Amino acid sequence: MTDSSAPRVPRDRDNDYTPESAAQRRDFLREQCGAQLDHVGSFSFDPGVLPGNVENFTGVAQVPIGVAGPLRINGEHAQGDFYVPLATTEGTLVASYNRGMRLLSACGGVKTTVVDDHMQRAPVFICQDALQAREFGAWVDAHHDDVRAAAEATTRSGRLTYIGHYQVGPLLYLRVNYTTGDAAGQNMTGKATLAACQWMKANFPGEVDFILSGAIDTDKKHSQINMLLTRGKRVVAEAVIKRDVLRELMGVDTQTMFDYRQIGMVGGFLAGSSYNGAHAANGLTAIFIATGQDVANVSESHAGITYSRLLPNGDYYWSVTLTSLIVATYGGGTGLATQRECLELLGCYGAGKVQKFAEICAATVLAGDTSLTAAILAGDWVESHDKLGRNR
Amino acid sequence: MTDSSAPRVPRDRDNDYTPESAAQRRDFLREQCGAQLDHVGSFSFDPGVLPGNVENFTGVAQVPIGVAGPLRINGEHAQGDFYVPLATTEGTLVASYNRGMRLLSACGGVKTTVVDDHMQRAPVFICQDALQAREFGAWVDAHHDDVRAAAEATTRSGRLTYIGHYQVGPLLYLRVNYTTGDAAGQNMTGKATLAACQWMKANFPGEVDFILSGAIDTDKKHSQINMLLTRGKRVVAEAVIKRDVLRELMGVDTQTMFDYRQIGMVGGFLAGSSYNGAHAANGLTAIFIATGQDVANVSESHAGITYSRLLPNGDYYWSVTLTSLIVATYGGGTGLATQRECLELLGCYGAGKVQKFAEICAATVLAGDTSLTAAILAGDWVESHDKLGRNR
Amino acid sequence: MTDSSAPRVPRDRDNDYTPESAAQRRDFLREQCGAQLDHVGSFSFDPGVLPGNVENFTGVAQVPIGVAGPLRINGEHAQGDFYVPLATTEGTLVASYNRGMRLLSACGGVKTTVVDDHMQRAPVFICQDALQAREFGAWVDAHHDDVRAAAEATTRSGRLTYIGHYQVGPLLYLRVNYTTGDAAGQNMTGKATLAACQWMKANFPGEVDFILSGAIDTDKKHSQINMLLTRGKRVVAEAVIKRDVLRELMGVDTQTMFDYRQIGMVGGFLAGSSYNGAHAANGLTAIFIATGQDVANVSESHAGITYSRLLPNGDYYWSVTLTSLIVATYGGGTGLATQRECLELLGCYGAGKVQKFAEICAATVLAGDTSLTAAILAGDWVESHDKLGRNR
Amino acid sequence: MTDSSAPRVPRDRDNDYTPESAAQRRDFLREQCGAQLDHVGSFSFDPGVLPGNVENFTGVAQVPIGVAGPLRINGEHAQGDFYVPLATTEGTLVASYNRGMRLLSACGGVKTTVVDDHMQRAPVFICQDALQAREFGAWVDAHHDDVRAAAEATTRSGRLTYIGHYQVGPLLYLRVNYTTGDAAGQNMTGKATLAACQWMKANFPGEVDFILSGAIDTDKKHSQINMLLTRGKRVVAEAVIKRDVLRELMGVDTQTMFDYRQIGMVGGFLAGSSYNGAHAANGLTAIFIATGQDVANVSESHAGITYSRLLPNGDYYWSVTLTSLIVATYGGGTGLATQRECLELLGCYGAGKVQKFAEICAATVLAGDTSLTAAILAGDWVESHDKLGRNR
Repeated sequence: MTDSSAPRVPRDRDNDYTPESAAQRRDFLREQCGAQLDHVGSFSFDPGVLPGNVENFTGVAQVPIGVAGPLRINGEHAQGDFYVPLATTEGTLVASYNRGMRLLSACGGVKTTVVDDHMQRAPVFICQDALQAREFGAWVDAHHDDVRAAAEATTRSGRLTYIGHYQVGPLLYLRVNYTTGDAAGQNMTGKATLAACQWMKANFPGEVDFILSGAIDTDKKHSQINMLLTRGKRVVAEAVIKRDVLRELMGVDTQTMFDYRQIGMVGGFLAGSSYNGAHAANGLTAIFIATGQDVANVSESHAGITYSRLLPNGDYYWSVTLTSLIVATYGGGTGLATQRECLELLGCYGAGKVQKFAEICAATVLAGDTSLTAAILAGDWVESHDKLGRNR
Repeated sequence: MTDSSAPRVPRDRDNDYTPESAAQRRDFLREQCGAQLDHVGSFSFDPGVLPGNVENFTGVAQVPIGVAGPLRINGEHAQGDFYVPLATTEGTLVASYNRGMRLLSACGGVKTTVVDDHMQRAPVFICQDALQAREFGAWVDAHHDDVRAAAEATTRSGRLTYIGHYQVGPLLYLRVNYTTGDAAGQNMTGKATLAACQWMKANFPGEVDFILSGAIDTDKKHSQINMLLTRGKRVVAEAVIKRDVLRELMGVDTQTMFDYRQIGMVGGFLAGSSYNGAHAANGLTAIFIATGQDVANVSESHAGITYSRLLPNGDYYWSVTLTSLIVATYGGGTGLATQRECLELLGCYGAGKVQKFAEICAATVLAGDTSLTAAILAGDWVESHDKLGRNR
Repeated sequence: MTDSSAPRVPRDRDNDYTPESAAQRRDFLREQCGAQLDHVGSFSFDPGVLPGNVENFTGVAQVPIGVAGPLRINGEHAQGDFYVPLATTEGTLVASYNRGMRLLSACGGVKTTVVDDHMQRAPVFICQDALQAREFGAWVDAHHDDVRAAAEATTRSGRLTYIGHYQVGPLLYLRVNYTTGDAAGQNMTGKATLAACQWMKANFPGEVDFILSGAIDTDKKHSQINMLLTRGKRVVAEAVIKRDVLRELMGVDTQTMFDYRQIGMVGGFLAGSSYNGAHAANGLTAIFIATGQDVANVSESHAGITYSRLLPNGDYYWSVTLTSLIVATYGGGTGLATQRECLELLGCYGAGKVQKFAEICAATVLAGDTSLTAAILAGDWVESHDKLGRNR
Repeated sequence: MTDSSAPRVPRDRDNDYTPESAAQRRDFLREQCGAQLDHVGSFSFDPGVLPGNVENFTGVAQVPIGVAGPLRINGEHAQGDFYVPLATTEGTLVASYNRGMRLLSACGGVKTTVVDDHMQRAPVFICQDALQAREFGAWVDAHHDDVRAAAEATTRSGRLTYIGHYQVGPLLYLRVNYTTGDAAGQNMTGKATLAACQWMKANFPGEVDFILSGAIDTDKKHSQINMLLTRGKRVVAEAVIKRDVLRELMGVDTQTMFDYRQIGMVGGFLAGSSYNGAHAANGLTAIFIATGQDVANVSESHAGITYSRLLPNGDYYWSVTLTSLIVATYGGGTGLATQRECLELLGCYGAGKVQKFAEICAATVLAGDTSLTAAILAGDWVESHDKLGRNR
């Protein structure tokens, strides 16, 4: 085995999570690559908190946070006026969400509801043939309680809800669904499902093999199965946009907005899009970075469906349904220094807060979609980017 | 119009990009929400650089950066051993990518190629009927040079390459494609396309209306049209994983890996996934945050296709094609303090570097997919998360 | 209201299903359009059997039937050697399927298994808001037995199995799943679901409206939800193609075939295809026409997934999973003159035969895919169409 | 090689297309399977016309034809009142289409337009690596005229229009597009593309291999690439449904219909459907069987997009765009006995008629969608199937 000649990144085997270790790595990189990492080396917390969040810690990305709001939310869990921290480097984004929040608040606010909740790990069982796979599936159904017990023995907060079956040839893909409390739950469900699979393999009267992921989880990727069957939270934001307010604040008529919805729905269908609204990903990404979410889950979380109606009085009912919103208020990066502060800003840090946080995310998406849509229709989209964007 | 009673976020109309303005907002938020924002307020750069990147600047998210590498890349533009900065809060991620990089480097490195390059804005023209829409489309084709001239007059670095037509009823969706130099180009293409549309509307001998986005761009969302026709860079990373090295470093056989590929391809197809590999989103998101990319573009950029072969000698050829990688080495957040440092670490800051950067992104994705796949197959996936992850 | 001036098609109000009525219509059309309909008027059965199958009966399409086979099937329900009637006008089709059947039979035959069975009607409930829709959904779950009873009261053979929930904003899409005996069951499930909806609307303590189809059934169209959750029968055909036999009969190596599978799977994923095999639609359509199936269901039935393995001894395991095969051996057109004869040819007419018939369909698809794939790889695809096809 | 013991279907090597050969096969099947094939043996044409249409000819399927109409069409090519032959065994279908035709005719008829036309064969080139694949693609573009010449040398009526490139790793999928006159053109494009590929392989200064189909054609399957880029004809049918007429004839209000459209578009998007209208497949299949189309192409042809508007006066603009309608008026089964008569009934037999025929297909789809939608909304859907359907 001929290894690459470049030296490996230095680590301190005893305690790698110290300012000194980080500095040593920055020195190493400076030497190897000639890059200054002074700003990267400027952080305000003790690296000793980082085990479980990062390896080879070297410093931080300082991502600017702008605050948008107030956003009036009338949810089940989120109630009141919120100031939403958005970590972004894209000019116009905060201003645009802020504008949408103002509009929605002026119209009475956003109603939010978490309507479903499923996190999953999806193993595949490799059977002798299709018949055995079918019989194995029936056996799994018949032993649901045992399987659940095996899974739940590994976790305090995870609860196995149901197991979906999807057979292809001799392969039985299972999608094992859980609720996971205030954590996003990918690791928890992985561990629980491994235990469940081991139990199934050991107890099924027949030879089957399994692999812990058969790729229909679908972790860190968008998929139609997520859109249909939910991954994380399925959460709805609804608002009635008053005709007069829309015209006054954004210079657009509700009829125009609704006409455009027809075009956007056709466009989304034609393109095979993951979202038929405007740009859920923008707001979600900015909240995710600010609050210590697993930002890679934007790949799943940005998917959704807009449904709207033009009301007889000319007001405009608009709903956004995020079908795969993966969020946490506990675990992952939520407890880190700036991340926790931003969750606290929303009153969402810690236990029992994840549904509230999901509602705020959805309401924010609706605000951003409102604003961008109006900008497109009023013709000031390009102009505002010229004014607020970077590429001037 | 009854406005929400909550107060608006304070702004300084004269110069809002100062430490004082940011502090004033933090004070305001502390008062309104009771949240401390001390860490958020700890940043090492002058906010005066932020116009064009954020509004209502309040502080920063400090996202931990771990460094993975060296990764040997034998690309057209990226050549040598790279240390890749990954900004993340997900334990195991850096370690896993690092492990994959070690494997690939030990196997001789990754070959990378940017094979296509298109950024677009996709307006819709609303015609009288389908016939007029068809005729308008033919007219656009016949006046391609004029349309291009109108578009390119607005930009120094953007070049209009081709205009795709997609008709639905009386609607002609156009997808106007550009190369955009070292910028991601969403704003540039928006401005250029607006000019093109205005020219078309003014000169077409007939009444047509347009809206600057008909939703098939598809900005900030995954779509099949992106996968087919490219959005941003289409970039391939290829490697031959040696059977012996894989077994030694990861305890997995290439045959097993290839067998699993069959299952993953079926799973991805069955689920309607945006990616049939393992987890492109993880590595891309971490690089994007570190280097000042528009992180919301993870929604598009994580899509891709894996193609592999088991070679006669038992080695394993593996390729990843990212079909919609949206990256920049100029503009957006690339010039900010930590972000620029991280780009410089890769030798990718500034003009003429975007293809090199795209290649590094793709090579990193391949490394991460290799490592995660091996972990799933070797059975140490859950164990490593137990050891390195947060939820212990 | 200004009606079109063209005369309406003549009908006999007393008994429209007679040779005379049909002749009268042919005369009328000859007069109106100048078209001879002599062959159309040549049929061998009494039109008196047609109520429930067609209105304005005018004659018949005579679609040529070729017979392919024998095909050795080792299924749960289909066991033995079958001669499959294929109604088609596409030259090469029968010859190609015949060739594939010969290959598979020579390799020991096809193993077939029906692994799932669901027909559905999918109403939508329109609620006041997302919260009510969620609560309505929970109420439906809590009253599952009552809902099922209401549905099943309308049918002898239909059994309600489960109700899937898919919420978007204030809309709760339900997908009500049934087994439907030997009938395809679209009408049966429509009627049963209407009764179920009426019961739900009458008994739910709240105001909700419903429409009998919310378009996710998805009747007469392909969809990812069908592929995931089955529509009609989910049926697998498996075979081990022996290396020597393949080479001798078709001049292709199993390794080549497997290599091509990688390319086909990538192609299907890239294109967003409904099927990642070769051409299920060809064989299914020809069987459907011959046996009195609802041929429009080819839109759903042609979808599926191929999964294969190259075995250590060089033989090639190939499976096809049809995820949405909609077939009947009772009801619809199955009892008509030629249609019934063709079902009888397969030993599939009448009660208790639908699973057997589904298995034969899947085995036929596998035979056709084998043959076409080999033709593509051996380079005799174009040549055989030149020889056997129409456009010479 | 152990062959299946069942006897092979008898063939006459000298002249297999005779009544005697067909009778001999029926006798054989009767003996083998005990099935009577008397009706199958009743046909009115000389089997001597069948070479190129079927092998092992044994008899015919007699599929009942009902006629719907008159349908007023104001197309580019189809102009006047049409009586449409529908071959089906599904009760209600003809009546329902007939009802829709009456409505549309009463509203002034349907406007139809063929807006695009592409038939394709999609080979894949297997290159050494991604870089060579990219270079090969550039070489293909640079030699477009030569490639076209090689392709067109094989055909009188086919014209190569453009070649789309879609790269995945070292694979370059090409989608070679043609216009094909009045034929559907699958065989013609296969032959032409083979010649083109052979020319490319012979002339490219480098080693590349090709396979004639890389599965993105996507022949006999639905796909998103077809929806975007057209396969066969892209044809639009438009109508303005008058509020009063709709209410009088179908008891439904246009506002209700438009409201339902929102639900149907959401449902189609949620389910990942190939069509967001009602049931294009039903009418198309029935026309296809009647007129000798390749009915398996229903798999592609049923895909499409509905776009509609509620007009200020309360009338309802409705358009259907079929994106992948594959039809012919020449070649294939179009010249057979009953099939030709049915084409002649529409004035569509032979050269120069295919666009007219495509327009009639689209107008028929719109009629059927109108009628079914109204039935669903008026609540008489189940009732009419009870009355006219088979399962009574």
